[in-house]
Amino acid sequence: MEVKVVKRILANTEVVADAIKKELAARGNVAINIMGTPGAGKTTLLERTFLHFRRRFPMAVIEGDIATTKDAHRLKKLGLDVVQINTDRWGGSCHLDANMVQPAVRKLASIKNGIVFVENVGNLVCPAAFDVGETYKVVVTSVAEGDDKPSKYPIMFRTPQMIVLNKIDMIRMTDFNMARFKRDVKAVNPDAKLALLSARSGKGLEMWFRWVEGCLVSK
Amino acid sequence: MEVKVVKRILANTEVVADAIKKELAARGNVAINIMGTPGAGKTTLLERTFLHFRRRFPMAVIEGDIATTKDAHRLKKLGLDVVQINTDRWGGSCHLDANMVQPAVRKLASIKNGIVFVENVGNLVCPAAFDVGETYKVVVTSVAEGDDKPSKYPIMFRTPQMIVLNKIDMIRMTDFNMARFKRDVKAVNPDAKLALLSARSGKGLEMWFRWVEGCLVSK
Repeated sequence: MEVKVVKRILANTEVVADAIKKELAARGNVAINIMGTPGAGKTTLLERTFLHFRRRFPMAVIEGDIATTKDAHRLKKLGLDVVQINTDRWGGSCHLDANMVQPAVRKLASIKNGIVFVENVGNLVCPAAFDVGETYKVVVTSVAEGDDKPSKYPIMFRTPQMIVLNKIDMIRMTDFNMARFKRDVKAVNPDAKLALLSARSGKGLEMWFRWVEGCLVSK
Repeated sequence: MEVKVVKRILANTEVVADAIKKELAARGNVAINIMGTPGAGKTTLLERTFLHFRRRFPMAVIEGDIATTKDAHRLKKLGLDVVQINTDRWGGSCHLDANMVQPAVRKLASIKNGIVFVENVGNLVCPAAFDVGETYKVVVTSVAEGDDKPSKYPIMFRTPQMIVLNKIDMIRMTDFNMARFKRDVKAVNPDAKLALLSARSGKGLEMWFRWVEGCLVSK
């Protein structure tokens, strides 16, 4: 019985995710679903990305958090359009799903030929199971989390087109083994691009920027 | 209907959690449920704890991961009794629950008057909702994750008796604001103890050790 209910919920969110995808495409938008551990640096990466591209194309963020509007506030201060989703109104949900995202997408109807980023709830497990109408998925992890994350959380690393390894400026203070990390990423998701960067210092951001731009160009 | 099913599942796990608690108490054991973000340093903290106390009292670990036996392997190498639970056999569950933990507790029947640590799946959301028969709850977070975690993940920080802030040796490489972190911890969980430490370097571990020892003495 539990399985049936879960299947029905998933089937419903898939239908809504498809509707979101069509709605965004009709406005010429690309959506990028950014997932990752709490504190991996998702918001800092979005700040950098907005500052880099703001004169080139429109951007907006759908900001998923269990509680608080802290991340949304950080992004709004820069001039970004942000719609906050607090999942504590949805039972403290550990991920966004298409039903939560759809009203937010509608609020961003003025964004055209641009990128709508969805910053998912910080969680290396649950968001992997739910499409939110995105064109691309990204997972952000950091050297501070250790090199073993792709093998220990394979479901999260399996589907993204882009894997970001953040905080590379901290690598000397950790036991992070880059060869092992790259090998495990290849084993789980051989087709993903991998960007090694520090969103805080700015090091290595070029590859990420090229990839983001490519998402919009190739739509 | 979904709500009813979820309530039934929760009610069932509560009954099993109570049974685990009684079983552990009958052998004079204390159980400590260690939760936290992936890569917060839960396993490293357990390594340190075992090496510190191994001549003093028996310890064992129930190791929760979605996939791999990497953490269990690290702990077994030191001589610890470890029972691995891989939740990919339970639909890739984002947390341990009492039904998964009960068979593991039974495998550790030889542990008496000691501490059974439960290392939960790395996740700052889901494990907070499930008792696994523990006597105490601990959440481990790190300065690399940022100072905003207690306010953004209040459900996780609300119930533990002990909050560990790990990786304090990295604080200079971050924008971590200690006053803000402490204020937010107080707001969410005024009764919790707070240990600032680096499990990797060993700095600050004394307070953690005192707390662990106190758990066993005060049982």
